Amino acid sequence: RRYDYLTDGPEIYRRSFAMIRDLADLSAFPVQTEPVVARVVHAAGDPAVSECVAAHDDVVRAARDALRAGAPIFTDSVMLASGITRTRLPADNEVVCTLRDGRVPALAGRWSTTRAAAAVSLWGDRLDGAVVAIGNAPTALFHLLEWLYDGGPRPAAIVGMPVGFVGSAESKVALAEHRLADGHVVPWITVHGHRGGSAMAAAAVNALASTSEI
Amino acid sequence: RRYDYLTDGPEIYRRSFAMIRDLADLSAFPVQTEPVVARVVHAAGDPAVSECVAAHDDVVRAARDALRAGAPIFTDSVMLASGITRTRLPADNEVVCTLRDGRVPALAGRWSTTRAAAAVSLWGDRLDGAVVAIGNAPTALFHLLEWLYDGGPRPAAIVGMPVGFVGSAESKVALAEHRLADGHVVPWITVHGHRGGSAMAAAAVNALASTSEI
Repeated sequence: RRYDYLTDGPEIYRRSFAMIRDLADLSAFPVQTEPVVARVVHAAGDPAVSECVAAHDDVVRAARDALRAGAPIFTDSVMLASGITRTRLPADNEVVCTLRDGRVPALAGRWSTTRAAAAVSLWGDRLDGAVVAIGNAPTALFHLLEWLYDGGPRPAAIVGMPVGFVGSAESKVALAEHRLADGHVVPWITVHGHRGGSAMAAAAVNALASTSEI
Repeated sequence: RRYDYLTDGPEIYRRSFAMIRDLADLSAFPVQTEPVVARVVHAAGDPAVSECVAAHDDVVRAARDALRAGAPIFTDSVMLASGITRTRLPADNEVVCTLRDGRVPALAGRWSTTRAAAAVSLWGDRLDGAVVAIGNAPTALFHLLEWLYDGGPRPAAIVGMPVGFVGSAESKVALAEHRLADGHVVPWITVHGHRGGSAMAAAAVNALASTSEI
């Protein structure tokens, strides 16, 4: 070989996670949340992203219980859906992205909103007890929170990691601060600030789905 | 609405790219490369990532000409493939990811390499004149470079943005420094360091595919 590089997949994973724990201070996180943060750092290739991660104390248990019970996973982007490793899912859980549903453009036009937000409305009653992962559109996260406040079905957990410079940071503050009229809070995990994205959100779902690091 | 947020998709894009140009110094890049860097920053949600972007002066022209002529796009991950916006492609170009090809596990075992690297070998003669996008596995990029030095088919351009802590930075230095025996260099664009990923690589391809910002 011209280049000297590691070709053993499991060993690459092991060294990667060892480096992540060396470079990032994950001690601020509860023991059950730490592997999820490590996986988000792995997807970002940046230990500093751990400083932006915040999570509800119950999100790991809530998401894991829901997935084991067969809950579907709703995503706001096709890319995020395709980043979820199906073999890690404990109950062959369905991964649903409604963005390309034929009804979306007309709904978005009628409501004067984005297609990503309109697509959320199509999740329907199956949202009750589901796991939600948003990695692209702040408008999808805002729309979901509005729906919850309006008495909509309540997911078991929300991975809220939209990316970008317009509305993204604000939507994640809204997620972290939400509390419904009866005091209920849907357990959540987020990456505060402008950063986020499908890769980080998929990594979080993959870590919630299985305790296996590799 | 409980929250005050922008819901006009095109306006969100316009403000995002205005903020990116405000926050990131893109003046170091040639005029044709600047929109590609802006889109990578957009996908990352981080102006600082522009400081890690490096590109061959001819990569934009080479990739654009190839795509207009109908060249396929080869990717190292399904997630990257699904992040390429098909409506931006100028010639309904085929997007090919061989990672899940049934021959991959046996090839990886025989060659003692990763599945991602083995999958590259299946690109075959169609790699000649194609656009390559690598957003996940450093081993895929190393394998591709080895193949080029061994006289393999030459792509028109390489988007080389694998992410991670083991081999990623080294693979991107190798990409930026490659020069084949006859002096040929395949035009490339990369994000140096640990960062990268499917979202940034897909964003680069989407920017190379069309000059439209929205």
